[in-house]
Amino acid sequence: MSTTFAVQEKLMPSTHSTTMRAAVFHGVDDIRVEDVPRPHAGPGEAVIRVTMTTICGTDVHIMRGEYPVKPGLVIGHEPVGVIDQLGLGVTGYNIGDRVLVGAITPCGQCNACLSGKLSQCGHGSGYEAIGGWRFGNTINGAQAEYLLVPNAQANLAKIPDSVRDEEVVLLADIASTGIGGAESGGVKIGDTVAVFAQGPIGLCASLGAKLMGASMVIGVDGDDDRIVMARRMGVDVVLDYRVVDVVEEIKRLTGGTGVDVAIEALGTQQTFETALRALRPGGTLSSLGVYSGKLQVPYDAFAAGLGDHRIVTTLCPGGKERMRRLIEMVRRGKLDLRPLLTHRFKLAEINDAYKLFAERRDGVMKVVITP
Amino acid sequence: MSTTFAVQEKLMPSTHSTTMRAAVFHGVDDIRVEDVPRPHAGPGEAVIRVTMTTICGTDVHIMRGEYPVKPGLVIGHEPVGVIDQLGLGVTGYNIGDRVLVGAITPCGQCNACLSGKLSQCGHGSGYEAIGGWRFGNTINGAQAEYLLVPNAQANLAKIPDSVRDEEVVLLADIASTGIGGAESGGVKIGDTVAVFAQGPIGLCASLGAKLMGASMVIGVDGDDDRIVMARRMGVDVVLDYRVVDVVEEIKRLTGGTGVDVAIEALGTQQTFETALRALRPGGTLSSLGVYSGKLQVPYDAFAAGLGDHRIVTTLCPGGKERMRRLIEMVRRGKLDLRPLLTHRFKLAEINDAYKLFAERRDGVMKVVITP
Amino acid sequence: MSTTFAVQEKLMPSTHSTTMRAAVFHGVDDIRVEDVPRPHAGPGEAVIRVTMTTICGTDVHIMRGEYPVKPGLVIGHEPVGVIDQLGLGVTGYNIGDRVLVGAITPCGQCNACLSGKLSQCGHGSGYEAIGGWRFGNTINGAQAEYLLVPNAQANLAKIPDSVRDEEVVLLADIASTGIGGAESGGVKIGDTVAVFAQGPIGLCASLGAKLMGASMVIGVDGDDDRIVMARRMGVDVVLDYRVVDVVEEIKRLTGGTGVDVAIEALGTQQTFETALRALRPGGTLSSLGVYSGKLQVPYDAFAAGLGDHRIVTTLCPGGKERMRRLIEMVRRGKLDLRPLLTHRFKLAEINDAYKLFAERRDGVMKVVITP
Amino acid sequence: MSTTFAVQEKLMPSTHSTTMRAAVFHGVDDIRVEDVPRPHAGPGEAVIRVTMTTICGTDVHIMRGEYPVKPGLVIGHEPVGVIDQLGLGVTGYNIGDRVLVGAITPCGQCNACLSGKLSQCGHGSGYEAIGGWRFGNTINGAQAEYLLVPNAQANLAKIPDSVRDEEVVLLADIASTGIGGAESGGVKIGDTVAVFAQGPIGLCASLGAKLMGASMVIGVDGDDDRIVMARRMGVDVVLDYRVVDVVEEIKRLTGGTGVDVAIEALGTQQTFETALRALRPGGTLSSLGVYSGKLQVPYDAFAAGLGDHRIVTTLCPGGKERMRRLIEMVRRGKLDLRPLLTHRFKLAEINDAYKLFAERRDGVMKVVITP
Repeated sequence: MSTTFAVQEKLMPSTHSTTMRAAVFHGVDDIRVEDVPRPHAGPGEAVIRVTMTTICGTDVHIMRGEYPVKPGLVIGHEPVGVIDQLGLGVTGYNIGDRVLVGAITPCGQCNACLSGKLSQCGHGSGYEAIGGWRFGNTINGAQAEYLLVPNAQANLAKIPDSVRDEEVVLLADIASTGIGGAESGGVKIGDTVAVFAQGPIGLCASLGAKLMGASMVIGVDGDDDRIVMARRMGVDVVLDYRVVDVVEEIKRLTGGTGVDVAIEALGTQQTFETALRALRPGGTLSSLGVYSGKLQVPYDAFAAGLGDHRIVTTLCPGGKERMRRLIEMVRRGKLDLRPLLTHRFKLAEINDAYKLFAERRDGVMKVVITP
Repeated sequence: MSTTFAVQEKLMPSTHSTTMRAAVFHGVDDIRVEDVPRPHAGPGEAVIRVTMTTICGTDVHIMRGEYPVKPGLVIGHEPVGVIDQLGLGVTGYNIGDRVLVGAITPCGQCNACLSGKLSQCGHGSGYEAIGGWRFGNTINGAQAEYLLVPNAQANLAKIPDSVRDEEVVLLADIASTGIGGAESGGVKIGDTVAVFAQGPIGLCASLGAKLMGASMVIGVDGDDDRIVMARRMGVDVVLDYRVVDVVEEIKRLTGGTGVDVAIEALGTQQTFETALRALRPGGTLSSLGVYSGKLQVPYDAFAAGLGDHRIVTTLCPGGKERMRRLIEMVRRGKLDLRPLLTHRFKLAEINDAYKLFAERRDGVMKVVITP
Repeated sequence: MSTTFAVQEKLMPSTHSTTMRAAVFHGVDDIRVEDVPRPHAGPGEAVIRVTMTTICGTDVHIMRGEYPVKPGLVIGHEPVGVIDQLGLGVTGYNIGDRVLVGAITPCGQCNACLSGKLSQCGHGSGYEAIGGWRFGNTINGAQAEYLLVPNAQANLAKIPDSVRDEEVVLLADIASTGIGGAESGGVKIGDTVAVFAQGPIGLCASLGAKLMGASMVIGVDGDDDRIVMARRMGVDVVLDYRVVDVVEEIKRLTGGTGVDVAIEALGTQQTFETALRALRPGGTLSSLGVYSGKLQVPYDAFAAGLGDHRIVTTLCPGGKERMRRLIEMVRRGKLDLRPLLTHRFKLAEINDAYKLFAERRDGVMKVVITP
Repeated sequence: MSTTFAVQEKLMPSTHSTTMRAAVFHGVDDIRVEDVPRPHAGPGEAVIRVTMTTICGTDVHIMRGEYPVKPGLVIGHEPVGVIDQLGLGVTGYNIGDRVLVGAITPCGQCNACLSGKLSQCGHGSGYEAIGGWRFGNTINGAQAEYLLVPNAQANLAKIPDSVRDEEVVLLADIASTGIGGAESGGVKIGDTVAVFAQGPIGLCASLGAKLMGASMVIGVDGDDDRIVMARRMGVDVVLDYRVVDVVEEIKRLTGGTGVDVAIEALGTQQTFETALRALRPGGTLSSLGVYSGKLQVPYDAFAAGLGDHRIVTTLCPGGKERMRRLIEMVRRGKLDLRPLLTHRFKLAEINDAYKLFAERRDGVMKVVITP
C-alpha cells in the first residue's frame, strides 16, 4: 500500500494544467466545448486521459432534452484512455496503462453488485435503478480530455498492446449492450434469432447472436445504409421492412414456427409488437430499446398466462471483467466493429459530430471522437 | 383409428354401457349434463373413469363465451381417476390403477416437447401455441364419467395408495400453474416475493414461493375470504389493497427496495402495473393472469432498455413427471391444498357448482366434482 | 390416422426381399457382414434404408470385447437414411423422406425424457442409466442396409434437400456429443477453453466452444495428423503435448489464470488430471471420455470442498429436435465436418474400415460406410 | 497501510487499550489465548468488536497441523460483532452497528468477484484459488476480541434488532456452505435429496434442500447424537449406516431410481463413493467435504462419458448480500439453527472448547465462543 507522499505525487503531476476541454450540456440543443476544471482522483478513484470516445443515441436524447441531466454536466459514457492518476487504494495498475472503462461503473460492493446485478448498482449498499450508469448522467462523462473514474478498482480494463483504441471504443456500451441482449435472450446453438433494427446496438445484438451459435440471424431494418452494413457484417438474412411483410417472411424462413429469440433494438411500439409476433410459441423477446410513454402489449401476441413467452430487458452490462472478455474477443479476432466507425471528429468539432449522428446523414453508424 | 382384436378386448369390457354422463358446453351460459358416447382408447391412448375433478376459472370463461370452444364439447381439464382402458402401446400400467392426469397432455415427441416446452406441444412435430392444452379445449374434457387421455404414456401419473383423490385433484392445473409461476420467477433462498391476487392460483404461487425458500411471501388481495385463507395457508404477510397502498407497503417491508420477484395471478391492467412497480431494480415479474384486450406496460415502471426487469409468463406445466413430483410433495406432507376445497357437488349438480364458483359466493375457493 | 389396410401396405412393400446385409458382432474381433432378417416397423416404429453411416470409437470397444454386447447383434449407431416403412401412429412423415436419426433414441414419454434427461431414457417410465443408447447396444444398429427405429415419432429428423448425407452423418453422435460437451461446460462469450484430445469428438467439442463464443479455444493432442486437422478446422491454438508442458503453456496463454472450461475427450487418467490442473479457480471440467477402471481425482487439483470446480459429464444428446438444430447449423453454413470424413468404404468392406480406424492408420479421422 | 489524521480519529477512540485477547496458533495442538495488538482500520477496512464466534472443523484441521497456517496467526472465521472502527471510504454504516461478516471476505472488484465467483476472489484483480477465505487463514481471524475486516464495504451485513447473535453466528460459514451445497446441487421442487453425514454442515445442507422444496431429504450418519439432532431438525428420513445398507435403502425409498441430488458433507472416499452410487442416472453430486490425498472415482458409479452425472463443489459463499439473505431467513422464522449450539465457552476457555469439539464429546454440534 502506497504512502501518502507517493499518492500525492501520483495525484498531481506538476506538468498538468488545472483545466481541460470538455463537451458540456447547457440546455436543449446547447452543448459547448469549453474549459472545465480537471478532475483529481480521490481514494478508490482514477483519472484517465481520454484518447478516444464516441457519441451514443442516449447522448442525442440528452441533447434534445428527452433524457434530463443537469446543465453543466460533461456528457458521454464510452471512454478509452490512458491512466493519468490513481487514487489511494487502487492497486494493480500503473500510470500510463491503456484502459477501457465500461459505460456503467459498478462498485462491486453493494447488494445489487454482489447479486450480479451490476447495472442496478447501489453505490455501496442496496439497489438503485440504473444506478450503474453514472458517466454523463449523474457525474461528468467521457467527451472530455480527462475523466474521473469512480470505483476504479472494479472498472479499469487493460488494453493489450496489440489492440488499438478504435478496436475497443465500441465495447464500452454498444457492443456490451447489444451482445448482452443476445446473452439475456439465452441464444443457444441452432436457434433462429431476429433482430429488429440494425443500428449500432441492433447490429451488435446480431453479432452477439452469431457468436452464441445461432443457426440463422435475421436482421430487420428499413434504412439502405444499415441494410448494406448488416450484410457486410455477416448478418445471415437482412429483411427490408419497406418491401416485405416481416412477420410473414420470418415465419416462412423458420418453417412456419417463428424465431426462438427476437431482439428489439429500437424502442418503438411497432418494433416491440412485431418482435412479439415473430416469436415461436414459448420464445424469448429480449428488449434493448428505450420506449417513450406507454408501451402496449398486444394480448393476441403476448398471450400472458396462456403462453410462456419471456420478455427480458438489458441495461448495458459493465465492470472490468465484462470489458476484459470483450477485449479478448477483439484481440483473438472474433469481433471487429471497426466498420461501424464511419466518421471521425476532434473533440472541438463535436457539435458537427452530434449533428451528423443525430440526423443520420452520410450513412453514419458511429463517430469517433478524439480529444 | 385401427384396432386389432386383442385391443378390442381391452377396450370394451362387456359390463360397460356405451354412454356416459358429461357436462357439455352448448353455448353461452348453457352447460348441460347429458348422455354422450363413452370414449374408447385407440393406440397410445387410455380411458380413465373420472373419480374427482373440479372447475377452473378458465371453464367460467368458456361458459361465458369469453374463451371460445365448439358447442358439443365436454369441458373440464383437471382429472383424477382410475384407468379403465389402455390402448395399444401404452406400457407400465394396469387397468384399475389410480392416476392423476395434468391439465395439459404433451406428446413428449414433438420439437416443442423435446425442447422442454411441453405446454407448446406440437402433437408430433413442431410447436403449437398452447398446444399442450387439449382437455375441454380441443378435445372432450374431464367433467364427465370417463375421459379419453391422448399420449397416455406421457401423461398418466400413478397415485400412491396413501394419497387420496382430494389431496391431488388441485395438482392437475392450479398447483402446477401457481407453483410453476414461482419456478419461472426463479425464486431463490432469501428472496422476497409478492403475489398479486390470492385466489386458488395466486395462493398456490404463494405456496410455491415458500417451498422455494423465499424469506417473505407477501400476498395481496381485497377479498375477506381470500385474505383469511391466505393467512391460514401460511402466507407470511397478507395485504388488503382496500386499506393499504400496496406498492408503498411492499417498499416498506423490503427496506425500500421492492421485491425480488412479483407474481401476477389475476390478469388485469391494475395488478400487472402494481406488480411491476413493486419490483426491485432488475427484478422478475412472473405473469400468470390471462389479460383481455391490450395490456399497457407503463414505461416508468418497466424501464425497458434502461432497466433489466424480466417478465416471464407460464402456461400450466404438465406431463406425468411433473404430476409425479407434485404428488410426491403431497405424499411427503410438504403440500396440502385440501383447505381450498370449500364445496362439493355431484356431476349432476355441476350447474350449481358453476354458479357458486363464478359468483364467488360463500367463500368458495375451489369446488370438488364427483361423477 | 391411416387404416389397417394402408398400414399393411406401408409395412411390407412386395418388392422387398426379406433379408438384408449387416455387420454382425459374433465375438471379439469377429464382425461379419452377413444376411440377417430385414426389420419391420411395428406400432410407433419406422424402418429406414440406411444410405450412410460411420464407425465410432465405441464400436471399436465393442469389437475388442471391451464393451460387452450380445453376439448376433448388428452394430453401429450413426444412421442417415430414407424412410422405408412407417409403423402405426407415426405421423408427419412420408415413405421416402430423407432422415437423420440420433445415436440415442429417447422415447420422450418416460420420467427421464420428460425431465429433459433424454440420454437416461427409461423407455416409457422411470430412468435407465444410458437407456437412451440402444442402436448397436441393446437392439440392432446402423451398419446395415435397413434399420428399425424405435420411438420413431421422437427420432426422425428430416434432411433438407440442399443438405447431403455426408454433411450430416457425423451429427448423429460425435458432433452431438462433442458440441454437447461444450454446452454442458457452459461456455460463455469471452471464455477460454482447452480441449484435451483432438480426435473426432474432441475436435467437435473445440468447434462447439467456438460456436458458443469462446475467445480462444486451445486444442491439445500429440498426433501429427490430428494437430494438422485441428488447425485446419480453425482451432485457435493447438498444443502438441509431446513438445510443450501443456498446463504451463495454458497458464501462460491465459495470463496465469487457467481456462474457464476444460473439456476432456479421451478418457485417460492423464488427460483428466491435466484438464483439472489447466482450469482456473472455480472453472468447469466437461468430461466426455470413457474411463476404464478407477479414475483418480488428484486432491490438489480438484480441491473438492475447498474449491468450487464443477465436473460435468455428457452422454450423446439425441432426439429429433437436437438433430434438427444441428442440421440447421450445417444447412446455414455454420458447421462443416466433411473434412473429418477421410476414408470411404462399402458395407461389404467394413472390416477393412474397422481395421484402419482402430489402428488410426493413414491419418484417418472418420470413415464413411455406404451400404 | 497509510492513514491520515482524519482516519486516525475514527480509528482509535481514546478509551481503548492497544492490545486484545485472541486465540493464536503457535503450532500443532498449541493454541494460546494471549495478548496481541489490537487492529486498526485502514482505508476500506473496518474493525469489529467480536461478540460471538464459534469453532469450525477447519479450525480443528489447523490445530492438528493438517491445514497449514503461519504460527502467530489468530484463527477463526465466523464473526458476529459490533462495528468499532470504520476506515476511510466505508459508507452506510455507523460505529456501534451490529454486523455479521461471512467466513470469506470477497473484494467485489476483481475479475473473479465480478464474475460471481466470490470464493475465488483475486483481491483486486484476477482469480485466486480459495482467495476469498482470509480470516484465520492468511490474515488474523475471529477468535479474538477485535477483528479487522478487509473490503468492509462488501462484507458487513447489518443484524436487525429483533435478531440475536446466537441466531446468526452459524450463518457466517456452516449455514452458508451447507445451504450453498443444496443450491449448487440445483435442488428443485419435488426432488429427492440424500445428504451424507449430518454434522453441522451436512445438517445445514439438509435444511437447505428442504428450503428449496425437496419432497424428501434423507440424512445419513452413524452417530447417535447426530441422528437424533437430524430428526429433531426435521430431516425427513434419517438413515443409520451402521444398521442399513444405505444405497439399497435409498434406492428403495426412491422407487428404485436413486436420488436426484446427493450431497457429500464429510470428505471421505467412502461417503463420496456411496453418494455417487445413490444417485439416479443423470443426477448431481454436490460435494462439500474436504478430501485428503487422492480421491478415487469408481468408474461403475461415475460413468464419465457414458453418463451425465454432474459433480459440483462449493466453497463457502460470502459477501454481505449473501449474509443479508440468510439473516432474513432467520428473521422471518424460516431458519433456526440455535439447537446446534450445544455448548458455550468464554474465549479464555477456548482450548476446552477445541478439545470438546475435536473429540465430539457430549453430543457437541457447535460451540459458542464469547470474547
